Amino acid sequence: MASSDRTYSGKEVALHNSRESCWIIVHGKVYDVTDFLDDHPGGSKIILKYAGKDATVEYDPIHPPDAITTNLKPEKHLGSVDLATVEKVKVTITDEERARQERIAARPPLSEILNLHDFEAIAKHTMPEKAWAYYSSAADDEITNRENHAAFHRIWFRPRILKNVTKVDWSTTILGQKSSMPLYITATALGKLGHPDGELNLTRAAAKHGIIQMIPTLASCSFDEIMDTAAPGQVQFFQLYVNKDREITKRIVQHAEQRGIKGLFITVDAPQLGRREKDMRQKFEAEDPSEGAARAISSFIDPGLDWSDMAWFKSITKMPLILKGVQCWEDALEAYDLGLNGVVLSNHGGRQLDFARSGIEVLVEVTSKLKEMRGLSFPNEKFQLFVDGGVRRATDVMKAIALGATAVGVGRPFLYAYSAYGPEGINQALQILHDEFEMNMRLLGARNIKEVVAGMVDASNIHLHMVSVPADNLYESNYERLQGARLREIKNKL
Amino acid sequence: MASSDRTYSGKEVALHNSRESCWIIVHGKVYDVTDFLDDHPGGSKIILKYAGKDATVEYDPIHPPDAITTNLKPEKHLGSVDLATVEKVKVTITDEERARQERIAARPPLSEILNLHDFEAIAKHTMPEKAWAYYSSAADDEITNRENHAAFHRIWFRPRILKNVTKVDWSTTILGQKSSMPLYITATALGKLGHPDGELNLTRAAAKHGIIQMIPTLASCSFDEIMDTAAPGQVQFFQLYVNKDREITKRIVQHAEQRGIKGLFITVDAPQLGRREKDMRQKFEAEDPSEGAARAISSFIDPGLDWSDMAWFKSITKMPLILKGVQCWEDALEAYDLGLNGVVLSNHGGRQLDFARSGIEVLVEVTSKLKEMRGLSFPNEKFQLFVDGGVRRATDVMKAIALGATAVGVGRPFLYAYSAYGPEGINQALQILHDEFEMNMRLLGARNIKEVVAGMVDASNIHLHMVSVPADNLYESNYERLQGARLREIKNKL
Amino acid sequence: MASSDRTYSGKEVALHNSRESCWIIVHGKVYDVTDFLDDHPGGSKIILKYAGKDATVEYDPIHPPDAITTNLKPEKHLGSVDLATVEKVKVTITDEERARQERIAARPPLSEILNLHDFEAIAKHTMPEKAWAYYSSAADDEITNRENHAAFHRIWFRPRILKNVTKVDWSTTILGQKSSMPLYITATALGKLGHPDGELNLTRAAAKHGIIQMIPTLASCSFDEIMDTAAPGQVQFFQLYVNKDREITKRIVQHAEQRGIKGLFITVDAPQLGRREKDMRQKFEAEDPSEGAARAISSFIDPGLDWSDMAWFKSITKMPLILKGVQCWEDALEAYDLGLNGVVLSNHGGRQLDFARSGIEVLVEVTSKLKEMRGLSFPNEKFQLFVDGGVRRATDVMKAIALGATAVGVGRPFLYAYSAYGPEGINQALQILHDEFEMNMRLLGARNIKEVVAGMVDASNIHLHMVSVPADNLYESNYERLQGARLREIKNKL
Amino acid sequence: MASSDRTYSGKEVALHNSRESCWIIVHGKVYDVTDFLDDHPGGSKIILKYAGKDATVEYDPIHPPDAITTNLKPEKHLGSVDLATVEKVKVTITDEERARQERIAARPPLSEILNLHDFEAIAKHTMPEKAWAYYSSAADDEITNRENHAAFHRIWFRPRILKNVTKVDWSTTILGQKSSMPLYITATALGKLGHPDGELNLTRAAAKHGIIQMIPTLASCSFDEIMDTAAPGQVQFFQLYVNKDREITKRIVQHAEQRGIKGLFITVDAPQLGRREKDMRQKFEAEDPSEGAARAISSFIDPGLDWSDMAWFKSITKMPLILKGVQCWEDALEAYDLGLNGVVLSNHGGRQLDFARSGIEVLVEVTSKLKEMRGLSFPNEKFQLFVDGGVRRATDVMKAIALGATAVGVGRPFLYAYSAYGPEGINQALQILHDEFEMNMRLLGARNIKEVVAGMVDASNIHLHMVSVPADNLYESNYERLQGARLREIKNKL
Repeated sequence: MASSDRTYSGKEVALHNSRESCWIIVHGKVYDVTDFLDDHPGGSKIILKYAGKDATVEYDPIHPPDAITTNLKPEKHLGSVDLATVEKVKVTITDEERARQERIAARPPLSEILNLHDFEAIAKHTMPEKAWAYYSSAADDEITNRENHAAFHRIWFRPRILKNVTKVDWSTTILGQKSSMPLYITATALGKLGHPDGELNLTRAAAKHGIIQMIPTLASCSFDEIMDTAAPGQVQFFQLYVNKDREITKRIVQHAEQRGIKGLFITVDAPQLGRREKDMRQKFEAEDPSEGAARAISSFIDPGLDWSDMAWFKSITKMPLILKGVQCWEDALEAYDLGLNGVVLSNHGGRQLDFARSGIEVLVEVTSKLKEMRGLSFPNEKFQLFVDGGVRRATDVMKAIALGATAVGVGRPFLYAYSAYGPEGINQALQILHDEFEMNMRLLGARNIKEVVAGMVDASNIHLHMVSVPADNLYESNYERLQGARLREIKNKL
Repeated sequence: MASSDRTYSGKEVALHNSRESCWIIVHGKVYDVTDFLDDHPGGSKIILKYAGKDATVEYDPIHPPDAITTNLKPEKHLGSVDLATVEKVKVTITDEERARQERIAARPPLSEILNLHDFEAIAKHTMPEKAWAYYSSAADDEITNRENHAAFHRIWFRPRILKNVTKVDWSTTILGQKSSMPLYITATALGKLGHPDGELNLTRAAAKHGIIQMIPTLASCSFDEIMDTAAPGQVQFFQLYVNKDREITKRIVQHAEQRGIKGLFITVDAPQLGRREKDMRQKFEAEDPSEGAARAISSFIDPGLDWSDMAWFKSITKMPLILKGVQCWEDALEAYDLGLNGVVLSNHGGRQLDFARSGIEVLVEVTSKLKEMRGLSFPNEKFQLFVDGGVRRATDVMKAIALGATAVGVGRPFLYAYSAYGPEGINQALQILHDEFEMNMRLLGARNIKEVVAGMVDASNIHLHMVSVPADNLYESNYERLQGARLREIKNKL
Repeated sequence: MASSDRTYSGKEVALHNSRESCWIIVHGKVYDVTDFLDDHPGGSKIILKYAGKDATVEYDPIHPPDAITTNLKPEKHLGSVDLATVEKVKVTITDEERARQERIAARPPLSEILNLHDFEAIAKHTMPEKAWAYYSSAADDEITNRENHAAFHRIWFRPRILKNVTKVDWSTTILGQKSSMPLYITATALGKLGHPDGELNLTRAAAKHGIIQMIPTLASCSFDEIMDTAAPGQVQFFQLYVNKDREITKRIVQHAEQRGIKGLFITVDAPQLGRREKDMRQKFEAEDPSEGAARAISSFIDPGLDWSDMAWFKSITKMPLILKGVQCWEDALEAYDLGLNGVVLSNHGGRQLDFARSGIEVLVEVTSKLKEMRGLSFPNEKFQLFVDGGVRRATDVMKAIALGATAVGVGRPFLYAYSAYGPEGINQALQILHDEFEMNMRLLGARNIKEVVAGMVDASNIHLHMVSVPADNLYESNYERLQGARLREIKNKL
Repeated sequence: MASSDRTYSGKEVALHNSRESCWIIVHGKVYDVTDFLDDHPGGSKIILKYAGKDATVEYDPIHPPDAITTNLKPEKHLGSVDLATVEKVKVTITDEERARQERIAARPPLSEILNLHDFEAIAKHTMPEKAWAYYSSAADDEITNRENHAAFHRIWFRPRILKNVTKVDWSTTILGQKSSMPLYITATALGKLGHPDGELNLTRAAAKHGIIQMIPTLASCSFDEIMDTAAPGQVQFFQLYVNKDREITKRIVQHAEQRGIKGLFITVDAPQLGRREKDMRQKFEAEDPSEGAARAISSFIDPGLDWSDMAWFKSITKMPLILKGVQCWEDALEAYDLGLNGVVLSNHGGRQLDFARSGIEVLVEVTSKLKEMRGLSFPNEKFQLFVDGGVRRATDVMKAIALGATAVGVGRPFLYAYSAYGPEGINQALQILHDEFEMNMRLLGARNIKEVVAGMVDASNIHLHMVSVPADNLYESNYERLQGARLREIKNKL
């Protein structure tokens, strides 16, 4: 992209500080964004706050480095600035931020983190609120978001005994690629909100632990940065939001293939990114009228994508094609019949349609119907099933495997891991999962992933969506709870 | 109605301040209510409080303007009063009222209201207590009231993908009339309790958003006031409580038809208005022995109404006839066989018989049985099904549509919207619903209302009325909840 | 019984104040209880506390007036005492008692009591603790006790519309006797614990409201006192605990028949009275080692009673014979085959075997099986089914009637009514039930009790004994509840 | 084992206080553990804390007396020490410990303990935290741990009436041995953590009450100590963890048989001992990096044990062979087909695989399938079924018996009983169970254990693993709970 090589002084830039003429500085370059103000997905207000100033700090965690150069016409790339002459943006440390820094200092040592829940517990209190709101929020009343986890609790184990489980092996292959565990790091957006290295934390940890990362379209790091960070031979997948402009999509897909991506996961559950009220409400507290980060960054996604596009995808790439976000057997069947390579049974982490069922529930329906209608058995090399959403324990993964999934995607827990503890956090998270797999493979009586079979789980209650009859508050306020033995004069802790 | 044109002085009126001779002033007119005291549905005590005085402020939110002239014989309409000579009723502002005014001032700006729940959250704290008690109360233990909402949570979506959802359209027709959404404003009584403009707020908002208002018999505004406020061509329905005196009913119905009402919804679930204990209890706090607003205003309703009256209704009007308050398939079938135009599956917002099932549950039974017995499929132009009760999200509406309803009635949320924020509140409420429809139509994979079909929902648990086995308190008080990672010396927020 | 007519002085009696020679005064008579000390069901300690003194105040609420004369040999009835010479037992009013008196003074006026729950709410705070413990306690973990109420919540209504319900009549006949409601006052022990008039409160209220009282074997008032208090023609039933000594039982039964009792309810679920830990724990607080009131008074009950006794009962009385405490269809069938007149499906208010099912659940099983095996339909004149336990609303009663019961027994709520408000309390309780019946008969669309039929309820979930999977506390402590709109700087009431 | 008979002085020993040369004193003997440091299952750190010192106090509750002599080569047994010359290990009493001592003093008298829950309530507050953490902890989220108890609550009784229950007898035979109740004390490790007499408390109480103790491999007391403590003729079982070195196992088994053990329970659900996070977290609070007591003591267990080992067991002993930890019918069937004598349906108290089903649930599946496939009925003399986990009441036991179990294992409650109250505690616990059996046999209508049959329970919901749909927090925070009658100006206790 042709950028002028003129160098401006900070003073010069500072004059363009209004809606009429609005320049900003990002990474030492000067851009004229006057005409772009109304097109900015995040609204004009946030840009105007930095009119005539250096916006890098605000820009970085929300945008990949090349976002501005990609979206702004070349003639608006005005040139460089002499950073020495630019007035520093005064960063006032709020009381809230100071309190957060204190909480960061009070984190327990990483060795005391025992499970994936623990990372979330610490991240909740140590991440910037905005980042927490973006990562943790979900659609409407967040029913589906929580159901994703709860659904695993309706599946129980039928462990087998007296197998020689001296050696247990939970490695597997996913789309023909080796993985040290039957899970992959699924795509999540805006990785830098939680840590300045963003998605690179995931890339490095995936390499170290022999698992596969799915690179998101909406990464904070650029695709090439991530690919460049990968270890030699490291396997990666790519998650694709399809652009209204198919040429852009074609370019992205073919570039991904060229760089060695081993599987293309096309997101089909997000023709429009969801309303996530916690995220939106967080904005209000910051008196910022925009609609939350999610919608700001997603206006390019094409709601017109349909089944007829699938042939085109097959024509532009040889990568395995997987649909991410399938939610009923009818669509899984269609994907199979069209010759695609698999589907991710997913509701986008509960961030899209509330009351969508969990992926693990849909899995039961899909394997049963595809067996009935096409005679397929799962796991199946030719047409692989994946599940994501709500996973917190190796046992959750093992339930999905027993029910026919090839592997399971895990997203938020890894974000929380590095948001709370940086790169060491995600290493620890993966180590914990390895420990849990070793233990639970043994206890389930399975020596390898092929031995984790349907007979080892009872999923007969998976379709029960129960709501208790509303409480009879008058009756219950009269009922006096039984009081057991107590210490004299010492109140029971409860 | 012949009213004397004599003009009294305030002093003169003030002499008639006892049970023996009781005059009151309403809207500048003087009435002799001595003989009416014992017939007043709200009891004599509340009238005697204003004996010899101006009762307008107390009268207005509870009665339509013409209530007094309709109910009092013409000879008791004594004439006018010179208002300048009337002693002002001293309104003492209580501490409680002062606190309420402070809460009103502390409302968040309307732009921060994100969903229908939010209006209720604000209205609860800013409405007069009496109004809150009347609007929110329900029968007995309010089990059905809450079940109405909870039942929607037993229905889950089966969204379809890869439809071209660039354009989505959630408009529909209801009884042959266009509506911008598959919902209507259902009838609710005493609209002025929440805002001085009462039902007119709803009329204006309905016009603006292209939806249909159902005008209640027990409106605080008179029927004609509401009709006069309607925009040209605005479609409205009318909800009818049938009077013991059928001539009065005939007059009301034919007047409604004449003024252009497009559908007559005859309430059949309220031969007597329910005991709503929250409403009754609120009265006690005000040391007022009456039985709550509901029963006070409803003594005219005929508990003798029965199926044989239906032929008569068909003889007096050509408006579509719909029964409001059907609660089992047997009665829906009867309505169909009698040639009526539809039924509202409703339990009166949980305000009548506690443990009546929710409309959405009855819908599943009705469509199944009417298909079995009469070969009907739904939605059905000839015999339309409606549901009301418990709706808070566009997804709730879409569940009902998928299951065969033509449209859904929404009541309390709109009352809360204007009670909390006036006319702008209800505009915002409708705008939110439009936003939710747009998003969720896309996410469900339906381009228009016809594409919202039964296969898109899983309602297989709708008939589960579950109550957990009572808690084992001794066991649970011993069980020590797992404690996850925590910040050192900083207590977990939970 | 021959009692000496000697008159003692208080001083004389006071000498016999030890385990070696222990005399007590009750109602002005002197008794030598030295030999009886170890036979006293309530233990010797409580008697010794009154050795040589007047024990009337302690004696009265626990024993019928004739208990001491019946249980003590005639030669131990020493004669009268000159009460003027007896030192008054100093009653120290404890701080706790003073606080209770204050709470009694703070009761809301009876007109503000709106439902049966309300009586319990007030009684809990105003009754003596011992009385509350005895009335409210139940077996083991009190699971069945609460299930009795909860089970009604698994039954929902299918109301019918457009019946002419101008007149509704909820009177019925029970064992051929008229009753103004389809319920009766069931037998409960120790009525004087809650009010000095004990069971007489119930007798009088039953007369006034035209309902039937079942007189308990373990009444605080004597059987004849109760019969003497009854109004002319008042119908009463009798509940029988069968004595190990059948001659005593025969005498009691024939005396009851002679005095006009219209039905004999033989308790069969209490071969031994239950361990009620709340009652027992209350004793510890009072540093009294006895096992709670229940077991103290019940040692005479015969655990050897069996089916073969039924022929004998038929030989000694012509009263209708009903078994109280049947809990499965097999035993109901046996009772029918033996020619008995009915059964009460009951678990003794949850006071005997914990995890016994509720009567209302057993009712569904019994009607279904007796239809299948003997072709019976219910309600049935020849073999009547009753249910008790957990009833708080007229709707609870109506559910039982719809499912085939002839009538329902109500116990604790009436005790709480008179314990909280004396005789007026129970009048109000019955009036509330009448009001609820009137309203709910109309709303259900039933003009009389015969029209309350099985099609009006959905009891399809009655056999579901569900327990939620234990909570995932780590996950839930991480999940941040959605926060809706709030007033600025004013905390949400919740 | 040859131990040097040299006697050292404390000073001499104290010189060996480093990783380079590390001696410790246990029970007056000196050991050189330098080479053993890295092999110590509990880690080297805890040993080094006592380098050169007397470690007896720390050693005792975790190890059987012979652990050190068994695990350390004879040449490292250096000899004796003159204890008078050994510097006392200063035991600083922490504030926490002082508070615990106060709580111990505040225990209610044993006579006020009414049920098994009560022991746990007191033990929780009076045991050392470490002991509480070890005894009460379970796997992962402790879902299975709590499900074990909860599952009993899905089983309800169908009691029979009018049996002559004057005499009831709940004794039975287990593996041909008499037991006064249909339960046995199951094996649990590290008994001395709760009380210095450890498992001997159980041995003595078992003798006194005529029940059977299962001696654990991981007892704090040595096997022979326990056997020596047993009363003449007292029946005991033995629980076996199979050692990687089968010769050791053979020696242990044959020694057990020789000493009169009447049943060998081979644990098959613990190829590796579980991760119990509460236990692990407790260690962190003590700044001790080891992985919790459980894993420290279990490294010898052979994960290679498999079905082919069963023939070998039959070749080395004539004791009845029972598999402990069977969790599905397939494995129970295999055990039967191999001619074993029974299985314990158990998930190791929820301490191994989370989401394993409860033993009581598996029992229903096993009896049904073994009847279907081998025509077996239960209880069955030849192939006996046992259940453990979650038992707190005699009713829990009776449910298992009704469903076909021969007897039920009870573990933690007895540990809590003696941890809270010493040997008297466990006597009281057993007495309470006897009382509960007597009462509940009568109330169920069973005169002996054979009469406790399947028709007496409704277990139709046992396989329901339900999870409520996640709460709609916005709706619920708006819903205003009904408020019943209250005392004026006196806040409701709730």
